[in-house]
Amino acid sequence: MAEPQQIIFSNDIAGSLARIVSEMRPSSVVVVTDDEVKSLVLPRLGLPADWTVCSFAPGDLNKNLESLAAVWGQMEEAGATRHSTVVNIGGGVVTDLGGFAAATFKRGVRFVNVPTTLLAAVDAAVGGKTGVNFNEYKNEIGAFAPADAVVISSATFGTLPAREILSGYAEMVKHGLLDSAEAYRALIAEDPLKLSDERMLELLEYNVGVKERVVTADPFERGIRRALNLGHTPGHAFESLALHRGRPVPHGFAVGWGLLVDMILSHMELGFSSDYFYPYRDFLRENGYGTPDITCDDYDTIVDLMRHDKKNASPDAINFTLLRAPGDVCIDCIVTADKIKAALDIFRDLTEA
Amino acid sequence: MAEPQQIIFSNDIAGSLARIVSEMRPSSVVVVTDDEVKSLVLPRLGLPADWTVCSFAPGDLNKNLESLAAVWGQMEEAGATRHSTVVNIGGGVVTDLGGFAAATFKRGVRFVNVPTTLLAAVDAAVGGKTGVNFNEYKNEIGAFAPADAVVISSATFGTLPAREILSGYAEMVKHGLLDSAEAYRALIAEDPLKLSDERMLELLEYNVGVKERVVTADPFERGIRRALNLGHTPGHAFESLALHRGRPVPHGFAVGWGLLVDMILSHMELGFSSDYFYPYRDFLRENGYGTPDITCDDYDTIVDLMRHDKKNASPDAINFTLLRAPGDVCIDCIVTADKIKAALDIFRDLTEA
Repeated sequence: MAEPQQIIFSNDIAGSLARIVSEMRPSSVVVVTDDEVKSLVLPRLGLPADWTVCSFAPGDLNKNLESLAAVWGQMEEAGATRHSTVVNIGGGVVTDLGGFAAATFKRGVRFVNVPTTLLAAVDAAVGGKTGVNFNEYKNEIGAFAPADAVVISSATFGTLPAREILSGYAEMVKHGLLDSAEAYRALIAEDPLKLSDERMLELLEYNVGVKERVVTADPFERGIRRALNLGHTPGHAFESLALHRGRPVPHGFAVGWGLLVDMILSHMELGFSSDYFYPYRDFLRENGYGTPDITCDDYDTIVDLMRHDKKNASPDAINFTLLRAPGDVCIDCIVTADKIKAALDIFRDLTEA
Repeated sequence: MAEPQQIIFSNDIAGSLARIVSEMRPSSVVVVTDDEVKSLVLPRLGLPADWTVCSFAPGDLNKNLESLAAVWGQMEEAGATRHSTVVNIGGGVVTDLGGFAAATFKRGVRFVNVPTTLLAAVDAAVGGKTGVNFNEYKNEIGAFAPADAVVISSATFGTLPAREILSGYAEMVKHGLLDSAEAYRALIAEDPLKLSDERMLELLEYNVGVKERVVTADPFERGIRRALNLGHTPGHAFESLALHRGRPVPHGFAVGWGLLVDMILSHMELGFSSDYFYPYRDFLRENGYGTPDITCDDYDTIVDLMRHDKKNASPDAINFTLLRAPGDVCIDCIVTADKIKAALDIFRDLTEA
């Protein structure tokens, strides 16, 4: 845990991987991925033929104990030892599940993350949070286990559907909000779907840098790391609600909506200026983030889902990360159910108007 | 991982627990145990009524993913949060599985181990190895996660069957062998089944001390901690073989037999004096450790099981911890299949004569 995570920004994925992995002198290399990345992305990377590929069905609905057990079984069949290296190639579902599989196989083998989606690059792949969903709760089971190395690249983003880019971009806006008003304004002034590869890699270095500084200061999330939860208390609730309904939504869309809810709560609780959330509402609308499709009949369920969030010290206290202003973070803000419901009213007024 | 593990030697279990747990100021307390300890031991301890009890079916055959998932589910139902404390009360199966459950529930909650068997007290409960069996391989899935505190007591040993005492005592002899010829000779001169509570607690403090020193020097088992694997490469193979046959044997019996195999290999490879193993053979025989019930037809299976041991860098190299003399340890000794089979011949001659 104490060893620093090596982060490489490069569009030569195979070359970077070859160098990193050979330095580890592993007894064998096991790639963990999902079936979709396996058929669409892996053939284009040109990985060594003696790396065994383990895969599971794609999607957050499959980030569960069954897929995890299947991956452990495939690692076992591949003859992986404690001295093997695992290379997780895919989106956040793959780096979360593959990271946890590696962290627990024979009590832990080394692993490298290669995020293939924007969201995974700015969120899941860096920072050591691994895990799976359990009984419909998100990331209920997992470990703090940073990858030994992460290869960040925009080379695989070209074929991503628009919603994947938007999903990742919401996390980038979050990092902007945590950093400064300027960074926030610059990010929502861009058109996420029309960025050049070069501009994207620039933004990634900045963005991953913001996250890295916070994580290094607090690897086990005992304090300031909870800043990264901005947008996530409502975001996870929206995401869980969608999962319960059998119509999952991209994590980043849920966070995108959650950021607006948290800006509203920040306004209500800490005087965060409402000037900031109108341009963001417009940003969400103009770029096609849609809405979570809720009515006031869903409020109790949403509040209940928030109660189950890992950040809460007890089921009676619902804990938020809020802002006094961009760059001025307040962690551990306890908000009452009534205030949350009032914020959801305002959120719906803004997004459905 | 870096925080030192607090070890308390006391026969006042409830009092020690109350003090340790209250210092942690948990949001709630969850006891993890097995159904047997729940009905036989827990009522006698007098634990606070507001501690929720989660339990699973006893025995190593139930140290699996299904029991683990059941415990996670019970913790969830009990409303456990990241700020709860888990108290594992039971033998090694309970501290291994409960420790892993705690280390991975919401990415890790604090936990305390209360070993109720001699084996768990000298082996599983201290040192941070947690996990479950998977696909019939022992401890295939797990994590290095030390308990925040361990309460070592002989107060629960009175009702243990003789084989449980013998099982733990074999690990104590291992610690003696790792320490010095004097410690080794003193341990095998005792009658394990006739020790007073006081003498047992004395021996425990000494024994847990040996283990603690080794673990502190190498928490992740990258080097000298492998000294503790003395007896375990053959021991785990005997244990797995018995599991495959559907007739599980106590871990400590398998280790007891394994220590003799490793003494024989130490003699063959490193000139360890054969004078040491005759008294030990007699110790095993006089105290009723029995034999693993193998023939030369089992040798290939045993060697295959050894190949799967986590300690091996590759399936072709079988790795042992051996001794030049008591207290003079040699880790990472690679032994060929032929030598292993020759040692098993001598082992059978000694134990079956």
